[in-house]
Amino acid sequence: MPVNYSPPAAGDLLAVPGVSVAATRASIRNWHRDDLTVFAFAPGSRAAGVFTRNRFCAAPVLVCRDHLARAAEVRALVINAGNANAGTGASGLADARRTCAEVGRLLGCSSEAVLPFSTGVIMEPLPVDRIVAALPRCVGALVPGGWPAAMRSIMTTDTVPKGASRRVVLDGVPCTVTGIAKGAGMIQPNMATMLSFAATDAPIAKPLLDALVRDVADRSFNRVTIDGDTSTNDSFVVTSTAQAAVREIVSVADERYALLAEALLDVATTLAHAIVRDGEGATKFIAITVAGGRSHEECDRVARAIAHSPLVKTAFFASDPNLGRIVCAIGNAGIADLDPAGVSFHLGDVLVVERGGRAASYREEDGQRVMREAEIAVRVDLGRGDSSTTVWTCDFSHDYVSINADYRS
Amino acid sequence: MPVNYSPPAAGDLLAVPGVSVAATRASIRNWHRDDLTVFAFAPGSRAAGVFTRNRFCAAPVLVCRDHLARAAEVRALVINAGNANAGTGASGLADARRTCAEVGRLLGCSSEAVLPFSTGVIMEPLPVDRIVAALPRCVGALVPGGWPAAMRSIMTTDTVPKGASRRVVLDGVPCTVTGIAKGAGMIQPNMATMLSFAATDAPIAKPLLDALVRDVADRSFNRVTIDGDTSTNDSFVVTSTAQAAVREIVSVADERYALLAEALLDVATTLAHAIVRDGEGATKFIAITVAGGRSHEECDRVARAIAHSPLVKTAFFASDPNLGRIVCAIGNAGIADLDPAGVSFHLGDVLVVERGGRAASYREEDGQRVMREAEIAVRVDLGRGDSSTTVWTCDFSHDYVSINADYRS
Repeated sequence: MPVNYSPPAAGDLLAVPGVSVAATRASIRNWHRDDLTVFAFAPGSRAAGVFTRNRFCAAPVLVCRDHLARAAEVRALVINAGNANAGTGASGLADARRTCAEVGRLLGCSSEAVLPFSTGVIMEPLPVDRIVAALPRCVGALVPGGWPAAMRSIMTTDTVPKGASRRVVLDGVPCTVTGIAKGAGMIQPNMATMLSFAATDAPIAKPLLDALVRDVADRSFNRVTIDGDTSTNDSFVVTSTAQAAVREIVSVADERYALLAEALLDVATTLAHAIVRDGEGATKFIAITVAGGRSHEECDRVARAIAHSPLVKTAFFASDPNLGRIVCAIGNAGIADLDPAGVSFHLGDVLVVERGGRAASYREEDGQRVMREAEIAVRVDLGRGDSSTTVWTCDFSHDYVSINADYRS
Repeated sequence: MPVNYSPPAAGDLLAVPGVSVAATRASIRNWHRDDLTVFAFAPGSRAAGVFTRNRFCAAPVLVCRDHLARAAEVRALVINAGNANAGTGASGLADARRTCAEVGRLLGCSSEAVLPFSTGVIMEPLPVDRIVAALPRCVGALVPGGWPAAMRSIMTTDTVPKGASRRVVLDGVPCTVTGIAKGAGMIQPNMATMLSFAATDAPIAKPLLDALVRDVADRSFNRVTIDGDTSTNDSFVVTSTAQAAVREIVSVADERYALLAEALLDVATTLAHAIVRDGEGATKFIAITVAGGRSHEECDRVARAIAHSPLVKTAFFASDPNLGRIVCAIGNAGIADLDPAGVSFHLGDVLVVERGGRAASYREEDGQRVMREAEIAVRVDLGRGDSSTTVWTCDFSHDYVSINADYRS
């Protein structure tokens, strides 16, 4: 059960003009569910994406980067669950390209206008024949209202589907931003790659869309972590179909850019939080804010040192205010000249550490009260600068071990 | 139960001339066991140590560093289990100094000739009055054969005591190296700091002893990891009592230096491996060797990326040859220009990956066979240089979560 997250109700996931969607069963694995998804976009649509930095990135990630760099428009996404097509070498690349070619043939567009995505087990050959065989059925089923089906068919270890929509009014015209995501580990090389796809009918110039997607990813998906790994397949792609009857946004200074960015950030943050709330075995949703740093980078290091410590995460699972573990993680973040005497932190509204030691006012029962909550805020002050950042994570439970130890068996 | 490790039998832990040892119960916590240990050394003994790099290092670590830098000789160690005296600020420092002063008074040496160590819960005041009250009884019990009692009284979450002895013949004179260690997590801010104490009667000049201890630590304790954290209290201290009737070793070129180094490395490696074999919840002992790197540092990064991945560790626990997780961890190690096509790896004697993809010869049943073993070797070749290194770790089980989630409750 996710921590305080429910998937959008029927009707809450809004269709985006210029986007049609379908999902079908290609039997990528021996399971009884849809596992192949196609998005089709109106001619002239443009997309931007951010992808994993893992050096063993999957074949579809390599093809996505190549196609985004070469194609003038993006006409389709094709996504399979159940197999990551990673660690598959030259044949994996050929399989990803063949999938794109087949979608291009069915939709009447170039192969380069199609972006492929895969999520699932690494180092197993992609069953590309089954994908190719299922594609005509999937393309034949494309409908504007297909988002909820897509939201479910891209899932792997997720316990709930994840989606969000926002309206934004530009020049008096209501535009839509809709997105879906899957992932139950920020990094799950097995079955829980993070994938997210969003689309808007608001028109925005390609270079601006590139910048917008990077910025939004940095403030949403790149600020959540479940187990500190980075998948071979992580992808976040946003498409603008430009179907809304408004002038194209061509400048960051255009006030409509800020409105669109806010809507997209809202969708992306909702989806990023949903991934953590549905984190493998998660029972708590934890926001770690580190302020008073000399740079964003050092705040980020401290926040992630806390977020990734198995000891901190198991203490949250146990609702145990064993807060020395947080102190230890801060000291372990690799900031060579950090002065412990300048460090303080709050757990919720409770001051736990001041001047590097236990706060005189701290009482165990206050810490215990906060630790029992399902949503917990940790606020660290490094006491040496003006930078700050926030990272969202979850706790580390028996179910995490069960899910990851038992999955394939 | 540790993985293939049994503590030394009575009589196997050899006394070291010039060293006497005792343990007693100071009731640091509400438990029924010895928790206070004193080592006393003959006049003129010298010691060298390596300590945690955690910025929130504990009060006793600060005092140790200060005393080692100032004192001409080291006459005693005083160690308590149950409380880390970390995150305790100025009063923690005063408590550590008071403990040293009391030992100095009882032994008739300067306070600076005493080194203090603590392991246990962070951010709770050290019950120094109980330590001071118990010290006369402990000092009164000092005997050359007290090592086995010390080996037990420094334990926290350890399931077995850890010790080792070696004889080394220098100039025809048999000398002894004996060491003990505690720790069940490479980094356990709660109750499992890594502490290790060794002593030898072989005489060695202080600067050489400093270099020897750093070198041995880098090749033993610094090459094991359980959960990737670094405690606030980690310490490894080696004392030379110089009681053996041989000339002092004053040069690295002296062939006796190599003999002594080999014996100490053997003791330290045995203890370091014992810590991993007794790692919290460990069911497997895993040696990760990374070769073919351009530098030791990049081999080390890859080895630790594998060793710290919760996904890799849970797969080992499950005996599941889900080896894409190792590929993902390699790609995630932060080597920006790593070419996946150059990477290969073996699991035991089985070639799993060659040229960045699954080996043509790989069969799942071969991987499964190796994964079922209690001792597993992973050998990665990065295919870009001549450097190599090995890191030892354990798997990640339900019991790890239980031990760390339930300890204080």
